[in-house]
Amino acid sequence: MYKLIHKDKNSAARLGRLTTAHGQIDTPVFMPVGTHGTVKGITPKELDDCGAQIMLSNAYHLFLRPGLDIIKKAGGLHKFISWDKPILTDSGGYQIFSLALLRKLTDKGVEFQSHIDGKKHFLTPDDVLDIQLTLGSDIIMPLDECAHYPCSRDHAEVAMKRTIAWAKQARKSFEHKKTGKQALFGIIQGATYDDLRQECAKEIIDMDFDGLAIGGVSVGEPSDLIYNTIESVAKILPEEKARYVMGVGYPPDILEAVERGVDMFDCVAPTRLGRNGTAFTSKGKLIIRNACFQEDFGPLDASCTCYTCKNFTRAYLRHLFYAEEMLGLILLSAHNIYFFLDMMRNVRKAITEDKFVPFKKDFLEIYNKG
Amino acid sequence: MYKLIHKDKNSAARLGRLTTAHGQIDTPVFMPVGTHGTVKGITPKELDDCGAQIMLSNAYHLFLRPGLDIIKKAGGLHKFISWDKPILTDSGGYQIFSLALLRKLTDKGVEFQSHIDGKKHFLTPDDVLDIQLTLGSDIIMPLDECAHYPCSRDHAEVAMKRTIAWAKQARKSFEHKKTGKQALFGIIQGATYDDLRQECAKEIIDMDFDGLAIGGVSVGEPSDLIYNTIESVAKILPEEKARYVMGVGYPPDILEAVERGVDMFDCVAPTRLGRNGTAFTSKGKLIIRNACFQEDFGPLDASCTCYTCKNFTRAYLRHLFYAEEMLGLILLSAHNIYFFLDMMRNVRKAITEDKFVPFKKDFLEIYNKG
Repeated sequence: MYKLIHKDKNSAARLGRLTTAHGQIDTPVFMPVGTHGTVKGITPKELDDCGAQIMLSNAYHLFLRPGLDIIKKAGGLHKFISWDKPILTDSGGYQIFSLALLRKLTDKGVEFQSHIDGKKHFLTPDDVLDIQLTLGSDIIMPLDECAHYPCSRDHAEVAMKRTIAWAKQARKSFEHKKTGKQALFGIIQGATYDDLRQECAKEIIDMDFDGLAIGGVSVGEPSDLIYNTIESVAKILPEEKARYVMGVGYPPDILEAVERGVDMFDCVAPTRLGRNGTAFTSKGKLIIRNACFQEDFGPLDASCTCYTCKNFTRAYLRHLFYAEEMLGLILLSAHNIYFFLDMMRNVRKAITEDKFVPFKKDFLEIYNKG
Repeated sequence: MYKLIHKDKNSAARLGRLTTAHGQIDTPVFMPVGTHGTVKGITPKELDDCGAQIMLSNAYHLFLRPGLDIIKKAGGLHKFISWDKPILTDSGGYQIFSLALLRKLTDKGVEFQSHIDGKKHFLTPDDVLDIQLTLGSDIIMPLDECAHYPCSRDHAEVAMKRTIAWAKQARKSFEHKKTGKQALFGIIQGATYDDLRQECAKEIIDMDFDGLAIGGVSVGEPSDLIYNTIESVAKILPEEKARYVMGVGYPPDILEAVERGVDMFDCVAPTRLGRNGTAFTSKGKLIIRNACFQEDFGPLDASCTCYTCKNFTRAYLRHLFYAEEMLGLILLSAHNIYFFLDMMRNVRKAITEDKFVPFKKDFLEIYNKG
């Protein structure tokens, strides 16, 4: 499903293309997050207008609410949410460990209580695969165990081995169950322990997934540990498979990962920070409630061409946040999504021209100085 | 500014056109309400896509926050909020009486404390005019005193007489201060007392305002009292002036008023009810959280062509409300605005064809049965 198009001459950054049943995706790509089947505050049309190529959703959340039965009857997730471009669904393993109550792990699967109504559920790796097959996800993530940071070596090893065992089971079942062009990615765990990461990567690579994900990074560890893990793992990943670092990240993290050869990213930051009144701009983050913007009639970002920046001033956006008007959240969220997607368009252009390294340097210089 | 185009042969309904510096408005017209300079949950682009011809905003709210100085520096309200079609501003008299703290009325004006920060203000009819001139409103409403329901005859008479005195002052000042095509409407008060209404109407008509508004209806009184007041006042209004019933209303109220010769309407219901999960449809109001919509894969309204109805099912919208996702509020608000505007398009078409009476009958039959 992945085709490598061009390798940057001066870094490991790569240009590629993913092919799915719902269209092609140019990589490196940022995937806006729509946990419950909606990118918070943005209509699918606005998301499309921002240039989103793929949306990420969450199997755990959708399984609990509205439930698979409804989405199945609606004709699958794409139809249910009115989004006809590709969808990647996270298994929700991470959410089970962070949100669900009274979870109990065995090699067979995970028992937990819903964070919504306390109802008990038991899900095997096969169940989690089936959920996503039913949703009709273009890219499916298997159940894994994501260790938090800090995490003891023993715990990291147990989680890593369980992730491998579950991956094996999902991979095997997928072979029989897959329909059309649905893809299954493998997830590499191992916390911040390089030998565990390497061991896990080798096992996961051997299972011949459609793409390879690095999970369990950006879970609280310092940036250099994130970059080390990504670099060390990316180095041994086969060139012909797409590489996805889960839950990463802010613009600097994304650029560091692109430089190390990563193709796919997702992060809730654009909408979560947008809702709180923080805009991402080429000059760094901007807190719209700050007094200095009271009479600032410029756009959020003078170099941005999004709907928000073309039509609204910082003074008006600030007013909307103080008046507690929904439009403020909407416009900042839309801008932030656009900002991330636009950054990725520039990343791809830079790689095409073998200029990723200077592009990254210039971007971060302005971003960090702002 | 108003041109009567056609009178329905079988009712007092009328087709007309208002001309303002920011464009023409076909009447009868519904004006979506953007109290703080934003129609709640809708971008100006979406509002435009819904076919809105004019937006209503509120001088009292904007005067308190963000303050006139900022809007003036932004180049006026249209530029500040990025809406280049006409804007009508309510004076905020009604809001001073319903929201502000410790208000004190004299013939000179009104003293009150801001409902936001408790700061004291004193506004004369001239001040209220100046505020709206500064905002750059296309249609300005003078300061008036709106009596609540029920209201003693004595109180209604005092409020009515004060409304007339304030109107005189505003009208006189406007003559000297107006710029370009800004228009000033007169407001007729008198509560539910027909003789007071008639007396007020005559005085206000004599002052030769650009348009005439019936204020202080739909403030808690039963429907038949609303319709009686509108009918009795509308009958004596000059044909060549636009007629506006303030704060009305739900679809049946609007249609009753159109039949009695009213041209302009505003109401917060489309967005307020939309935010609470209630959709207006051709078959009446629909509570999207109801269990019956859990697996309903039809649109909110099968006869509606809005973005929401063309793309999303009741089941998905219900899911959004249960998942507390902003998109639910956004999509229902946008649908409701579209529903009101579309109803007005059909109203205008019906009047053109001298079919308003059967149109209203058919509309209400389906609406009330739903």
